[in-house]
Amino acid sequence: MLSNRPMSELSSLSRTALADLGQKLEARYSAFKARGLSLDMTRGKPSAEQLDLATDLWKSPQGSFLAKDGTDGRNYGGLDGLPEMKEIFAALFDAPAAQVIVGGNSSLQIMHDTVVRAVTHGVPGGSEPWGKLSKVRFLCPAPGYDRHFAICEHFGIEMLNIELGPEGPNMDQVESLVASDASIKGMWCVPKYVNPTGITYSDRVVDRLAAMKTAAPDFRLLWDNAYAVHDLYPETDPLKNILTACKAAGNENRPITFASTSKVSFAGSGISAMASSPANVADAKKHLGFQTIGPDKLNQLRHVAFFKDYPGMLRHMARHAEILRPKFEAVTDIFQNELGGKGIATWTKPRGGYFISLDTLDGCAKEVVSLGNQAGVKLTVAGATFPYGKDPRDRNIRVAPSLPPLDQIKAAMEIVCVCVELASVRKLLA
Amino acid sequence: MLSNRPMSELSSLSRTALADLGQKLEARYSAFKARGLSLDMTRGKPSAEQLDLATDLWKSPQGSFLAKDGTDGRNYGGLDGLPEMKEIFAALFDAPAAQVIVGGNSSLQIMHDTVVRAVTHGVPGGSEPWGKLSKVRFLCPAPGYDRHFAICEHFGIEMLNIELGPEGPNMDQVESLVASDASIKGMWCVPKYVNPTGITYSDRVVDRLAAMKTAAPDFRLLWDNAYAVHDLYPETDPLKNILTACKAAGNENRPITFASTSKVSFAGSGISAMASSPANVADAKKHLGFQTIGPDKLNQLRHVAFFKDYPGMLRHMARHAEILRPKFEAVTDIFQNELGGKGIATWTKPRGGYFISLDTLDGCAKEVVSLGNQAGVKLTVAGATFPYGKDPRDRNIRVAPSLPPLDQIKAAMEIVCVCVELASVRKLLA
Repeated sequence: MLSNRPMSELSSLSRTALADLGQKLEARYSAFKARGLSLDMTRGKPSAEQLDLATDLWKSPQGSFLAKDGTDGRNYGGLDGLPEMKEIFAALFDAPAAQVIVGGNSSLQIMHDTVVRAVTHGVPGGSEPWGKLSKVRFLCPAPGYDRHFAICEHFGIEMLNIELGPEGPNMDQVESLVASDASIKGMWCVPKYVNPTGITYSDRVVDRLAAMKTAAPDFRLLWDNAYAVHDLYPETDPLKNILTACKAAGNENRPITFASTSKVSFAGSGISAMASSPANVADAKKHLGFQTIGPDKLNQLRHVAFFKDYPGMLRHMARHAEILRPKFEAVTDIFQNELGGKGIATWTKPRGGYFISLDTLDGCAKEVVSLGNQAGVKLTVAGATFPYGKDPRDRNIRVAPSLPPLDQIKAAMEIVCVCVELASVRKLLA
Repeated sequence: MLSNRPMSELSSLSRTALADLGQKLEARYSAFKARGLSLDMTRGKPSAEQLDLATDLWKSPQGSFLAKDGTDGRNYGGLDGLPEMKEIFAALFDAPAAQVIVGGNSSLQIMHDTVVRAVTHGVPGGSEPWGKLSKVRFLCPAPGYDRHFAICEHFGIEMLNIELGPEGPNMDQVESLVASDASIKGMWCVPKYVNPTGITYSDRVVDRLAAMKTAAPDFRLLWDNAYAVHDLYPETDPLKNILTACKAAGNENRPITFASTSKVSFAGSGISAMASSPANVADAKKHLGFQTIGPDKLNQLRHVAFFKDYPGMLRHMARHAEILRPKFEAVTDIFQNELGGKGIATWTKPRGGYFISLDTLDGCAKEVVSLGNQAGVKLTVAGATFPYGKDPRDRNIRVAPSLPPLDQIKAAMEIVCVCVELASVRKLLA
């Protein structure tokens, strides 16, 4: 989180100077509006250029449809994935392959289904299905991923906002809550390159999450490592292994980790996976056996043929970074140039992931998004990054720079900055 | 169901003659045992030869990754399937494409998830989630598909056996139960080429299922049309459209139909789909939006490129039939030659699907399966085709002739016939 040093902060201006600035901004804004642009900064989707990196997955005739162990990839079976695909995810999770379950094309589905199983049947160490309890609560570091929050809301799981700082969730808050409230059964975490702030949990945060005492014996960390390999720079943000940290702390069943190749190979046709303790994995497999005969093994074989191994996947991600880095830097450069030192916004400068998070003055996010929309820049709905869609300070805006071309990003961000400044002036004058 | 005419029925033999026959059979059986065979007749899986029919789906470079409507198949989206894939399933279901949802590689998953949604949230027309009710019951025509029954058992849904005859379920029994018991919320149906008997529901049965009065306002027919296009002969068994029949009877929301290409293209990498009323489809989509961003669209595009259209799929199925028909006929020919007229077994002669059902004398199925196993012929566990794995008459054996080569099938069936006769003699002598 960059805190911009006050240089010529708007709040220090006289009302006359502010009004004068406001007039200039209204004029600039009107000019933008008149251009009738249509720019979409809402979607955390890879661009066509990124998808082209994996064209061979689609176009080239593949090798054998037989897995290493002789399994015919075309036929039924393989409930938890082919050994060679498990090995790649085992390296990604830094977990034994036996503790990996390979799924279909959607890690969201694995997460959703993990919650469903807990609701209908409970989890190892729990005494009953969560659905039988009068109240189940989850901790939700926010801003965070709206689809995590949506799953909770859909299943009647009450969400408690947890402040998300530069090192991760506010652990004093977390520890105090989980220690005293047995209805708190879980916590959503995107530990690396958090959606949307881009920060990575520190070792200290990981250790505290692993070791903290929870009133609920069946508390679960739903650890969505969605951006495990999504570095923008050659050096990755190190993330401590939650599986080993929890095991060392005597809480082996606490974490369930998730990942996918959706933003590695193809967003709609990747491979998802989870890793957890032997007990959680056995439990998940037992349930999976009722749901499916197995995920698409041919797609696993395609992916193995394409990446070869985990280092191959990392090399592939370096090519994504070449495309994404200039887009991310364009956004933060424009923020710095247009908003720097004005005391009206802070933003993150992520070293990976898919989003940049912009915080306006309190009470301005909705207006900025509305102004942006009217000027043809579609931004993620203000509040979407918080449980129940409610940003208590109405200040967070999620910016998704991956999909549009660079020139569109620059045009859109210039407009967004004017919107931020205009909303700030209006607020200060109000 | 072929009822074999009494010719020289075993039950009419004297004890001496029976004992004499028993000795001969024991000798034949011992000779088989000594051969140390290993034949597996348990799995309803396509053979490699069948899978080879779709080799182009795997090996050949495919066309464009863009769908007709411009959707990039590689990226996120397409919650309910691409239009061109929906069209093919719309033809299969004989339903409007707007009432079709295309899923991933597993229709079992769509069915499982349909039940889960009813358990956690209820269904349109119902007043509460099924999981909140003290008792939920399902009617299960039996013999039937073990994985349907397993889903019920997993979610605590009590199953009631319904007699399955040559025209379908015993409708007097069905109508009387659903009319009087509001806890009966659903019924599993494999309406065409039933697993395992191979019969197809008559029009009269379909009409009665569509029109019957149910005490539960949210009663559902889970209509697993798994073998919709799986004919062994040029003429298909006609099956009346349950969607239109229910709509005509004023019960539009009653049926949810399922199908897949698992036994059409690749068993592990096919495309699944469901079709239902607009209300059920809207409800399913609402829930799906929490579970996934969409199924694998590239696999849909591959399938569309391969089949072109529904008639193309039917032409492909005719090639499967060429492979499967001799296997099915070998089984029923051997049954006829070895067991015909002996009054100890009846069997079905399906015109499609994946199974042949053999009924022994009451109380003999477990012994036949055990004898078969000891002689190296693996048969589906006796009882597996009934709810809770309990065949009340212990007589049904499911034979799956698709996977093994023809010579193995013949060898296995010869042994099975000896086992049936031996078990029958033992029973008659007991």
